Amino acid sequence: MRRFSHVLFIAGALVFSAVSAICAPLASWNDGPAKQAIETFVKKVTDPDGKDFVSPEQRIAVFDNDGTLWVEQPMYTQLAFALDRVRQLAPQHPEWQENPLLKAAIEGDMKTLAASGDKGLLELVTVTHAGMSPAAFQQIVTDWLASAEHPRFKRRYTDLVYQPMLEVLAYLRENGFTTYVVSGGGIEFMRAWSDRVYGILPAQVVGSSIKTRFEIVDGKPTLIRLPEVNFIDDGAGKPVGINEHIGQRPIAAFGNSDGDLQMLQWTSTGAGPRLGMIVHHTDAEREYAYDRNSHFGRLDKAMDLAPAEGWVLIDMKNDWKDVFPAAK
Amino acid sequence: MRRFSHVLFIAGALVFSAVSAICAPLASWNDGPAKQAIETFVKKVTDPDGKDFVSPEQRIAVFDNDGTLWVEQPMYTQLAFALDRVRQLAPQHPEWQENPLLKAAIEGDMKTLAASGDKGLLELVTVTHAGMSPAAFQQIVTDWLASAEHPRFKRRYTDLVYQPMLEVLAYLRENGFTTYVVSGGGIEFMRAWSDRVYGILPAQVVGSSIKTRFEIVDGKPTLIRLPEVNFIDDGAGKPVGINEHIGQRPIAAFGNSDGDLQMLQWTSTGAGPRLGMIVHHTDAEREYAYDRNSHFGRLDKAMDLAPAEGWVLIDMKNDWKDVFPAAK
Repeated sequence: MRRFSHVLFIAGALVFSAVSAICAPLASWNDGPAKQAIETFVKKVTDPDGKDFVSPEQRIAVFDNDGTLWVEQPMYTQLAFALDRVRQLAPQHPEWQENPLLKAAIEGDMKTLAASGDKGLLELVTVTHAGMSPAAFQQIVTDWLASAEHPRFKRRYTDLVYQPMLEVLAYLRENGFTTYVVSGGGIEFMRAWSDRVYGILPAQVVGSSIKTRFEIVDGKPTLIRLPEVNFIDDGAGKPVGINEHIGQRPIAAFGNSDGDLQMLQWTSTGAGPRLGMIVHHTDAEREYAYDRNSHFGRLDKAMDLAPAEGWVLIDMKNDWKDVFPAAK
Repeated sequence: MRRFSHVLFIAGALVFSAVSAICAPLASWNDGPAKQAIETFVKKVTDPDGKDFVSPEQRIAVFDNDGTLWVEQPMYTQLAFALDRVRQLAPQHPEWQENPLLKAAIEGDMKTLAASGDKGLLELVTVTHAGMSPAAFQQIVTDWLASAEHPRFKRRYTDLVYQPMLEVLAYLRENGFTTYVVSGGGIEFMRAWSDRVYGILPAQVVGSSIKTRFEIVDGKPTLIRLPEVNFIDDGAGKPVGINEHIGQRPIAAFGNSDGDLQMLQWTSTGAGPRLGMIVHHTDAEREYAYDRNSHFGRLDKAMDLAPAEGWVLIDMKNDWKDVFPAAK
């Protein structure tokens, strides 16, 4: 019986720990100023008797995506997708060999690609993401995500989301918040999986977009994605995207780079209680360590402004017990 | 005692009728094919055991605004607002006297205005709706609505919403739908009052827009509305606006004019159960009677296509017990 009760004890402990992992709101967070800032803020705005109470319709929280909710190194996931797509489509487009940027993409010449800057990346995305309906595009993204692997972690990209941030999303929603993704990434690229991975519906995704046209094709109403930029939801574009899609000023914003600076400013200078947080990538061992000198997710000016603005830095290495969800 | 019990009976009857008005889902609708179409559709998509069951996240219903949810005669309410605003601002803008369109607006020369067509109306709106933040603009709209009166009904414009349609909005939401306004009208113009009047939050309003810019003014993060068109959410623009803001194809659409044609097509040709309805203005006595020849809210092609497409016409005169909410 001794061994049996031992097994029972272990089983019980496992069940208990699984249950607390599910029930404790921020289970993957170490106690510290970051976790405390989140909890204090949520208690404050949800206390109906407190002076800082915020009605549920006003509880809007916005999250950057790349580097805030999932990995953005060694390159944005959408860029990895675009590169795979260029290579896959290249045989049908011999004319792409005449375009230095597309040629570099086909040949995996990352140096030329990097030198092309954001403008080059935009051209790459525009060329490879157009010519089909949003639904067909999302299916292409879904298929790619089902097989593509991150080069270092050898896991699917949608498994490389930050477990502690999934807990923040859930914790806020349990407390009456509506959670939005507000990302420089493509709106339809994210919508393909945001509900499944983040519990964020398509209408709660704000992102960059290319133009779309409605037309009747063979008697069938159709939306077609065009190779033409519609909106860039980055930097000073983020408050504009928020205004267009949400129509209310958020009370909480989570970012990780200078691309989130204006979103943090816009969110945190409204009246009443505000929460601004910045994921600081300090963990080279479990994820990556980068800030001021990174090509993707450069964090410089926003970090300098953080103390004066009251934005709380999340120290990935010290604040997070786990970075990614456990492998299944 | 006789008289007293009589009073009690009347009081009881009044309470009962008030309660049924609140509780009966479509109390202002006469029994008929339109009411039946709504009820049958809702029962079908919410029956968990039925083959047509639709999960709550997919229950998206879209409503045109002008002529579908509120009065659009003798002119769009937003146009009445723009005209009042031109007159109010004219003293500060002597240069407007040089512009034939603005001059006509200042002088109330409706013939010239009408002849300028949609392009003229757009210029009028762009000029008078820019130069301030979205919040400041909404305050201007709110103030105007608090005093402006409809020329015929002598009531506030927000009282001239269709009571039966308010009931449809409530009935759908009670059945797990998310309801959106999708209108050619200005997104910020509608957001100023859509929550209070329709129970539709700013994020669930899709409309036409002018461009907005984020900038730091005197150290303060600010959004400024620019006199430049961003998006026209009308006709073939409606499915595009729906895709951009909602990211899902609706399963129910309510319109009243040819400007809603593509929204109806886009909604009703998706897989599974679909509901398309058209408010037909047949009641010159209680509201207005117009369709094919109307300048505002022309209903021609969509009416021709309705039978083949399965769109149900709402006959205002016969289907609606009341048109507007009772005056308070």
